[in-house]
Order: sequence, then structure tokens, then C-alpha cells
Amino acid sequence: MEKRVEAIADMNVDFAQWYTDVVRKAELAEYAETGGCIIYKPYGYAIWEVIQKTLDEKLKATGHENVYMPMLIPEGLLQKEADHIEGFAPEVAWVTHGGTEKLTERFCIRPTSETLFCAHYANAIQSYRDLPKLYNQWCSVMRWEKTTRPFLRGREFLWQEGHTAHATAEESLAEALQILDIYCEISSETLAIPPMRGQKTEREKFAGALSTYTFEHLMHDGKALQSGTTHDFGDKFARAFGIQYLDKNNKQQYTSQSSWGISTRLIGAIIMVHGDNNGLVLPPPIAPIQVVIVPVAAHKPGVIEKAEEVRATLAKIARVKLDASDKKPGWKFAEYEMKGVPIRLEIGPKDIEENQCVIARRDTGEKITVSLDNLEATITQTLADIRQNMYDRAAARLKAGTHTATSLPELKKILDETPGFVKAMWCGEDACEVRVKEEATATSRCIPFEQEKIADTCFVCGKPADKMVVWGRAY
Amino acid sequence: MEKRVEAIADMNVDFAQWYTDVVRKAELAEYAETGGCIIYKPYGYAIWEVIQKTLDEKLKATGHENVYMPMLIPEGLLQKEADHIEGFAPEVAWVTHGGTEKLTERFCIRPTSETLFCAHYANAIQSYRDLPKLYNQWCSVMRWEKTTRPFLRGREFLWQEGHTAHATAEESLAEALQILDIYCEISSETLAIPPMRGQKTEREKFAGALSTYTFEHLMHDGKALQSGTTHDFGDKFARAFGIQYLDKNNKQQYTSQSSWGISTRLIGAIIMVHGDNNGLVLPPPIAPIQVVIVPVAAHKPGVIEKAEEVRATLAKIARVKLDASDKKPGWKFAEYEMKGVPIRLEIGPKDIEENQCVIARRDTGEKITVSLDNLEATITQTLADIRQNMYDRAAARLKAGTHTATSLPELKKILDETPGFVKAMWCGEDACEVRVKEEATATSRCIPFEQEKIADTCFVCGKPADKMVVWGRAY
Repeated sequence: MEKRVEAIADMNVDFAQWYTDVVRKAELAEYAETGGCIIYKPYGYAIWEVIQKTLDEKLKATGHENVYMPMLIPEGLLQKEADHIEGFAPEVAWVTHGGTEKLTERFCIRPTSETLFCAHYANAIQSYRDLPKLYNQWCSVMRWEKTTRPFLRGREFLWQEGHTAHATAEESLAEALQILDIYCEISSETLAIPPMRGQKTEREKFAGALSTYTFEHLMHDGKALQSGTTHDFGDKFARAFGIQYLDKNNKQQYTSQSSWGISTRLIGAIIMVHGDNNGLVLPPPIAPIQVVIVPVAAHKPGVIEKAEEVRATLAKIARVKLDASDKKPGWKFAEYEMKGVPIRLEIGPKDIEENQCVIARRDTGEKITVSLDNLEATITQTLADIRQNMYDRAAARLKAGTHTATSLPELKKILDETPGFVKAMWCGEDACEVRVKEEATATSRCIPFEQEKIADTCFVCGKPADKMVVWGRAY
Repeated sequence: MEKRVEAIADMNVDFAQWYTDVVRKAELAEYAETGGCIIYKPYGYAIWEVIQKTLDEKLKATGHENVYMPMLIPEGLLQKEADHIEGFAPEVAWVTHGGTEKLTERFCIRPTSETLFCAHYANAIQSYRDLPKLYNQWCSVMRWEKTTRPFLRGREFLWQEGHTAHATAEESLAEALQILDIYCEISSETLAIPPMRGQKTEREKFAGALSTYTFEHLMHDGKALQSGTTHDFGDKFARAFGIQYLDKNNKQQYTSQSSWGISTRLIGAIIMVHGDNNGLVLPPPIAPIQVVIVPVAAHKPGVIEKAEEVRATLAKIARVKLDASDKKPGWKFAEYEMKGVPIRLEIGPKDIEENQCVIARRDTGEKITVSLDNLEATITQTLADIRQNMYDRAAARLKAGTHTATSLPELKKILDETPGFVKAMWCGEDACEVRVKEEATATSRCIPFEQEKIADTCFVCGKPADKMVVWGRAY
């Protein structure tokens, strides 16, 4: 494909620079005056809005309700669950003054809101009739990170956090798994990215959880991205916060809980899975603009009128923009390529004469001339084809980028030479996991639900092993 | 109307207690562990979601785009515009520590985000081609209030804040007025509350604005509520932040700006304008549940099935809930009355036999039997009638509650005896406004766009006056 854009680095030469260039040149985000934070610009925020809408509908369809909790957590409340405070205390921002007065108790800005939901549930739940509580919240959270990168790691990011309370441990586990399914559905269908899904090891699980489930994505540079997690708490938080209910036999029981979240980090995944040397490539379901119409020789009589007619027709089936500005078509071509718009539709005087237009696919660069008759059907089909092609390409890259190893040196060699996911058998000992981190700077990404038997022994210590784990270097 | 609910105070006896009771019993909000903050519960949050959706569509249709700025403002940035910092410094929350480290510069949690938008605009705007910028943000803000009331005044509340930049002062003024029109359209059409609109006096305008526009609502107890404001900044912030652009003649010019916001305070307005002694009364356009179906003798064969059939039919034209739980119909009647659901639809074996059902209107208490044929049309019409009736009632109360005064003692007497809005002529002197505050504990609500000549002289000092101002005691 012709490289139209000189403004961004070559992804094969400097992937990190390419990423930052795409974020800025596609106008997704900009650095803010507030250190470590970004400004979500209109185009980047619009992608988040589509993700929000898609997930919100699925959550509502499965009985979840939205709520909003305060952004500040009293210090005493954060400390109630021991593992949780240990996990988050080093990275929270502390509010110490209100106006000119020093506060008697400090508040942290939520890094996540388990403690607030638990405090509420302790009051709101009395009987089995009050269960389940299936609450979700759309908000931003704050973690005082040292190193930050737009969308991937920031002091403040946008996300949703679900917090549910159930009568039994079976139900909270089922909830954590159900939500992982919903996330993976969005990953495959909406983002056109095949997920690697599984359970986190003890070392990698969430602070305070019994078990954590994850879906991971493989980036273009072979690094892993943890794109979202769901947690089963069993009754750990319920015991710490005293969340009890009277069951049908009039006996006090602790509730069982789950929490789960996805964030604007998904925008990072979209960039790094689908992007190319001309910028962003957006899968149609997530694209704020699915079709951009660029009139050619727009000054000629009737061109703008016809372009507007096409826009009005297509607006019924897609998110369409007509760029009728006085910029040159070449500038527009590069601009919307950079922004990853799935279809560019060109129409000029000659096309109009022949009742046709040109459509150019962002994913393949292919240009074809199509009739203006049945244009809605043509565009609908092309958008579906693009999504499928993007998914297939990402799936092929995932397959090609997933290796196996039977020894730690082998794993290290693979990650040094052909970075990607590495499947290897693990004995279950934390010490082996620590060695992988120290000697190969890699972490366990997940214990996949779909297990394969690669060997009989742990690739680190050589003892018997029956768990296949996916390892990688992660963002 | 029969008073079914004993759980809430009588609004004519103790309006403040009635308000708190409705907030809690209708499950709109609950007090949080974080002092001065509330938990927006599912039903309260769902009302906010409808408001969001309604406004968001109107903003997008008028060319506005959503963005997201950081929640933290560096202290140095907050101080750039002198009037602005003076207005907000006493009531912001300060972050002084990140993790275990003391920060070299403090951050405040945004009380509003003019400063962040201005800092961004100073970088993002270079040429007249970059204008206008029509940005909006959905978020929460924090103001360290001493006295708080759910929805009306809280340390943290949900809102939207629009921040726009334009080439000329005429454009920023036009924007402030256009948005006020949109707000008032939502007030009248969606909330069924007639707004009192106008300009704020110098004393009451926003910190840093050239002029502030407001829409005010009259509550059931005769108090005023400032429900939303829009501000024209002219080039005040642009000069403080150095926001300049090259115009078409290649000359540097300062931009002109506006900002505007509405918040979850509107939920307080809905409660206090429409509510009655049985709880909340929701105008149909804003009701999360517009029709609740209560099956009668639900154990009889075919009742639940028919109720479900009716639900499915009505779901095409309204937000419908079928309550098929095993609670008694009487309990359900009271519950959905408390929650202000506009229409209750009762259906039992006898109704089914006669191809009919009973619909009860929440606004009037009226119960009528209607045919199941054309039920969609009947419900659509009834929902429209309810909205119109609720608007008419509120308009009649606004008219009856708006008085005139020609002297300060007269104004004080009115506010003491028959609280409401009071129209009175004002000379324009701040000293007179201060006297009204001190002697009648009232404030100017606005200088209405629709002026009347009530007298020739100022009701405070007796000097010539040509401005009619609306005064009141406000939340």
C-alpha cells in the first residue's frame, strides 16, 4: 500500500514512536497540563462512546444497573480489606485539604471502588430477596503511576467497574465468567480482535480476589496487553465489610461478590493490533465515522448536491461524514486514512454521469467502482467484509505469534527474537514464576481455559506439571 | 387522592423532611460513607441517563463534540484567571500526596474545568480555521460545601460542562444564548417545568464571566432553584491564558469563549416541582419506567402470559416494566406510586375475558378501563396527556407563585407569607441588591428577558429604575 503519510514513524523501525504519533496525528488524545494525564480529544472519546454504548446495552440486557459512587474514599474504609489496601496504597492520590482547612481524615481518589460498593452493600442488603445486586459504574479512576503512555497506562483513565453481590459462591463465580464472555464477545465482534482468555495465576491476580479472569491481546510488536479482567471474591470482602443476609431458612449468610472492568486501554489495543504505517485502521463496528464521502471536483455543478444525497441515503445504515470543506482531495485522503475510516467514498462529475462512485477500503487499500443503485446494500456488505477481514488478519497474526517452549532459555530466546505469546507447562510453584520474571523479564499472562498438553514437566524446574500457561512481555 | 404511603412526611407540614423521604423511599439516592456525598442509586441514575441522552443528542445535532479532560488541576493553572480563582479557591479539595510522596505542586479536584480547557485551547488553536471549538464534557466535579442536600448541593455532583472558543464576541454570546434555549427546551418538554429565564446581575454572575444567563425553577415550597447557567466570557479567559488565532487578514486576535452546565440538580427540581404526598411524580419523557404492568390474581391461568404479551406490545412505544413478583398488588401500587411511574396498567382474569385493562394515571389518580385493541395508541396518547397536564399545572403554580412588589418591606412580607418569585424594579446599584440580601434574605434570581414595567423607581432606594428583576429565596 502506498505510504501517504510522512508525519508518523515507521512501525517496523520504532513501534513506540509510531504509537505516539498515531495517537496524536489521528487526534485521539493529547498530553494534558496535569502530568501523567491525557486529554481525550473528540475522535478518541467518540471511540470510547461506541464501546460504552455496546457494553452498556449488553449489561442492561443481562440485568445490570448503573449507579454512581463518590470518587473519594475515606482512608479508614480503604483499609478494611488487608490485601486490597496493600495492593493499592502505594499508588493512590491523597486529598488532605478541603478549601483552606486540613481534613481530620484523608481521602484517596478511587483507584477502584470495591470498598465503596461493599460499604453500601453492608447497609443495603438484609435478605435473600435483596440479592443479587448487579451494579455497574462508568467513571474515571486514578492511580499514581510513574511511567505513563496514552491509553495504556495513565494516572487517570476512563473505565467501567461492575460490582455484584450474590447469595452463593457459585453465583459470583458464574458472574465473573459471564462478564468475561461478554467482554470477549465485544473483543471479537466489535473490536475485531481475537482474545486469549483464561485465569490469572495467584501472583498476577487482583488484590483481594479469590480468582481473576482475563482476556489478553497480542500487539503488533509481539507484546501482550491485559485488556480487561473479572474477579471472583467469594466472601472475602463480605467478611471484611460485614455484608450478610438472612437466607430462606432464616440463617445469616455472607454474600459472595464479583467485580470487573474494561477501560480506555482498549483504544490502545485497537491502535496496536490493527494500525499500519498510514495510521489508524478502525474496525467498522467501533469507527465513529464508518464512511467518509470525498467529493472530487467539488466546484463543478451538481457534485456537492449529489454527495449530500449519497450522505443522506447512507446515514440510514452507517455513521457517515461528508467532507465538503475546501481542502484538496489528496489532503482529505491522507487525513481519513490516518484516522482509520473504514470506507472512503469518492464521487465526481464523471461518476455522477455514469451513476457510480469509487469506494476505497482502509483495511486493504483496494479501490473499486460501484453503482449508486443499491449503494446501501453495497456499503453494508463492505463494512461487514472489512470487519471480517480485520478479524481474520488479527487471528492469523495471533496464531503466528503464539509459540511453545519447553525450557526457560527457549522461552527467553523466543521472546528476544520473535516476541509473542509463549505456551509452556508450569508446575504451579510461585518460585518458578518469579524465575521467569527475573531471567526472561516475562510474566504469566493467563492459564488458558483451552488447555493443551505441551510437555509433562515444568519448563522452569522440570518437576511434573499439568498447567499450560501463556507467557509474554506485557505493556 | 388517597394517601397510600405513610413512610414519607406530609409535604405541607415539613417540606424538607418530605424531600429527603422521597429521595430515599423512591430509591433515588442514599447517603455515602464519604461525608457530603451521595450514592446515585439505579433509579436516580436512570433519570440522569435520560437527561444525558436527551441533551447529548441536541448538543451533537448543533455541532458539539464530547471530550474528557483530567480531573486534577495544577494549582498554578487554577490561579491564572484572577476572578475565577477568587471564586473557587475557598471550596476546592486539594491533592497533596501521590502514593507516599509529597507532591511539589498541589492539584485541586476540578470544581469546574475552564482552566483546563483554556490551557488546551492555547495550544490547539492557531488559525481562524481551528474555530469554533464546541467541546462538552460529561463528568463529576467537586466543591467542598459545608451544608449539603441530595441533588441540590453536594461535595460531588454529576454534570456536563460545555466550553467553547469562537472568533468573535458576538459568536460566544450567541452560543451562551443558544445553549440556554436548548436547556429551556429540555426544561419545558422533557421535565415539564416552565423555566424563568434571564440574565444574572453582576453580583450573581459566574466567577470570571462577562455575563451569566440562567434558568430558574419555582419549587413547591415557593423557593427558587437555579437549575442551570450559561456564561459568556468574551476574551477575559483568552487574555489570561494567551489563546490567540491568526485571522483571515493574518492578524493575531484573542478568541471569545463560553461555558455552560446542567447537573443532577435537575433531579431535585423534578422532585420539588412535581412531587406530591404519595412521593415522586415523573413526567413521562424522563421516567425510566413509563408504564408498569401489575397483574391481578396473577396465579390464575393465563394472567401472567397476557400481561407479558401486553408488555411486549407496549415495549415498542414506551419504557415498560412488568412486575410479576409475588408481592401483593396493593404493595406494588404504593411502590410505583412512590416511584412516580406515570401509568400503572392493571390486568386480571376478568379484564382478559372482556379484552380490556385498567390504566391509572399517577398525575391525577384517575383510573379508566380501556380496550386492549389499539392499546399502543391509547398509551401513547395518555403519556402525552400526562406530560401536558403536568406542564400546565407547573405553569399555573409558577403564575400563581409569581408576585410583584414596589418596596422592600412589601417584598419581605410576600416572601415571609406567600413564598415565590417576586418581580420588582431595580436601579442597577449593587448596594440595593446587598440590602435585599441583608433585610429580606433574598437574592436576585435573574433579569428576565421578557421585561415588564412594574414601576418607575427602584423598590429599594426609590431612584429611577428601568430593570425588572425577579427576586426570591433560593436553594
